[in-house]
Amino acid sequence: MSFTIELAVRFQDVDAGGVLFFARIYDYCHQAYEEFWGSEGIDRAHFFAGAEYLVPIAHSEADYRLPIRHGDRIRVRIDVARVGRASFTLGYRVTGPEGDLRVEASTVHAFVNRSTMRPIPIPEPLRAILLRHLLREPAPNLAT
Amino acid sequence: MSFTIELAVRFQDVDAGGVLFFARIYDYCHQAYEEFWGSEGIDRAHFFAGAEYLVPIAHSEADYRLPIRHGDRIRVRIDVARVGRASFTLGYRVTGPEGDLRVEASTVHAFVNRSTMRPIPIPEPLRAILLRHLLREPAPNLAT
Amino acid sequence: MSFTIELAVRFQDVDAGGVLFFARIYDYCHQAYEEFWGSEGIDRAHFFAGAEYLVPIAHSEADYRLPIRHGDRIRVRIDVARVGRASFTLGYRVTGPEGDLRVEASTVHAFVNRSTMRPIPIPEPLRAILLRHLLREPAPNLAT
Amino acid sequence: MSFTIELAVRFQDVDAGGVLFFARIYDYCHQAYEEFWGSEGIDRAHFFAGAEYLVPIAHSEADYRLPIRHGDRIRVRIDVARVGRASFTLGYRVTGPEGDLRVEASTVHAFVNRSTMRPIPIPEPLRAILLRHLLREPAPNLAT
Repeated sequence: MSFTIELAVRFQDVDAGGVLFFARIYDYCHQAYEEFWGSEGIDRAHFFAGAEYLVPIAHSEADYRLPIRHGDRIRVRIDVARVGRASFTLGYRVTGPEGDLRVEASTVHAFVNRSTMRPIPIPEPLRAILLRHLLREPAPNLAT
Repeated sequence: MSFTIELAVRFQDVDAGGVLFFARIYDYCHQAYEEFWGSEGIDRAHFFAGAEYLVPIAHSEADYRLPIRHGDRIRVRIDVARVGRASFTLGYRVTGPEGDLRVEASTVHAFVNRSTMRPIPIPEPLRAILLRHLLREPAPNLAT
Repeated sequence: MSFTIELAVRFQDVDAGGVLFFARIYDYCHQAYEEFWGSEGIDRAHFFAGAEYLVPIAHSEADYRLPIRHGDRIRVRIDVARVGRASFTLGYRVTGPEGDLRVEASTVHAFVNRSTMRPIPIPEPLRAILLRHLLREPAPNLAT
Repeated sequence: MSFTIELAVRFQDVDAGGVLFFARIYDYCHQAYEEFWGSEGIDRAHFFAGAEYLVPIAHSEADYRLPIRHGDRIRVRIDVARVGRASFTLGYRVTGPEGDLRVEASTVHAFVNRSTMRPIPIPEPLRAILLRHLLREPAPNLAT
């Protein structure tokens, strides 16, 4: 089960070269990630900064297939690519209006105890949500 | 006639002090501004970078009334506060979920010839759109 | 006594129109503001997020005189324009390599108690620093 | 031969979780990348947007080892990890004040003809610069 948001590329996210600045795709992916949790009824202020755990990003990567320009209406699709004991991996497919693949990306998120910063198991209710969105077979393009 | 967008404050737009970084409100206002033109059928790639004119911002200002935090669902309302010969002024009211005023802002936009960078009259079709959204009586708080 | 930083306009801070996105000048002004406190021996992590007070920005404004482009080496000069009981005003002059004025800006900063969010007097050691940088005669262009 | 810049983490680059937003490390790496070309006498406005070629980023990735916080003085070191016919790979090591490793990152840059968007060989003078900075033995951590 995937989760998808649609958004218009903002004027200010384009760089002096006239295309989306490469790092901004991560901003858009993270926006999808926030909406993903929100769509599952998770309070985002609590999840991101108010809980006993933190969920820092341990790894990020992106492959840029086709340029993205100002005003393009793009879709960011999230799939859960892996659920481990204390971390999980998300894959993102960013497509243009005709479904044309623009960027593939992935991020690894690790649960840690807020005080000790040591890894902790993914809390059960969150693990259940992640498993529900887990891709049956890892897409060939997703880092795991 | 006003134009309004709603959006959720992004994780990355909050600063080390825990509230929306003061400059990011202009990003959100500009996003409303883009959507405003889009809602009027104006092609944004053409308007913002592809036309014979440019529309640089000559002035911006904002008054911060109440803090805005991560995850807040805010509304950005645009009104046209002034339509001059070669420039116009927009006013923005940013409100929280209960309609509580968070920020008031305004921007002045000047039409210039792309080659000479000299002021030019606002093109007629665009002026007509602006006039349709012009506030009858300037709100007391809007810079003109 | 003024305080000045010099910086090169980053690739990603330019928008689809090919000039510095208007809101990014506030990012650069705030960078100068951080360096200003740092140059006075103030610990910035403490000042901005760790103290018993907060110093939210109550007002910001900017006048854009000349375009700023990618790679331009600009200087941001800060002057203290006003020191009140519980708030102060900073003025910024952003100039190009030939001293040509590109942007004038100002920000109003208010001290508040972190718990009550009520105004508090500017702490003495900080007031002393601000007074040392206070412009004798307010520059005509600075909002007070 | 490496190239290194030092910078202070800006207030606005920290997220609601209190650490550098993961995508902003790419902004800092790109800033080092700009300065790298500048230090070699390459005009950055020309290189990034004014030449007959474009150099889009084809891939980016980062491993986050330790958190980076507001005000931290960090160093970003660039090495050239690979020079191919039409593309090259850069590796970045981001360290804290005590030389402690915070982030490792890499980016792949491809030269393309501006009109056709087809790959073109790296222009000779630029290739010479890259080769001069090429790591003799690829660091084990750098994607190639």
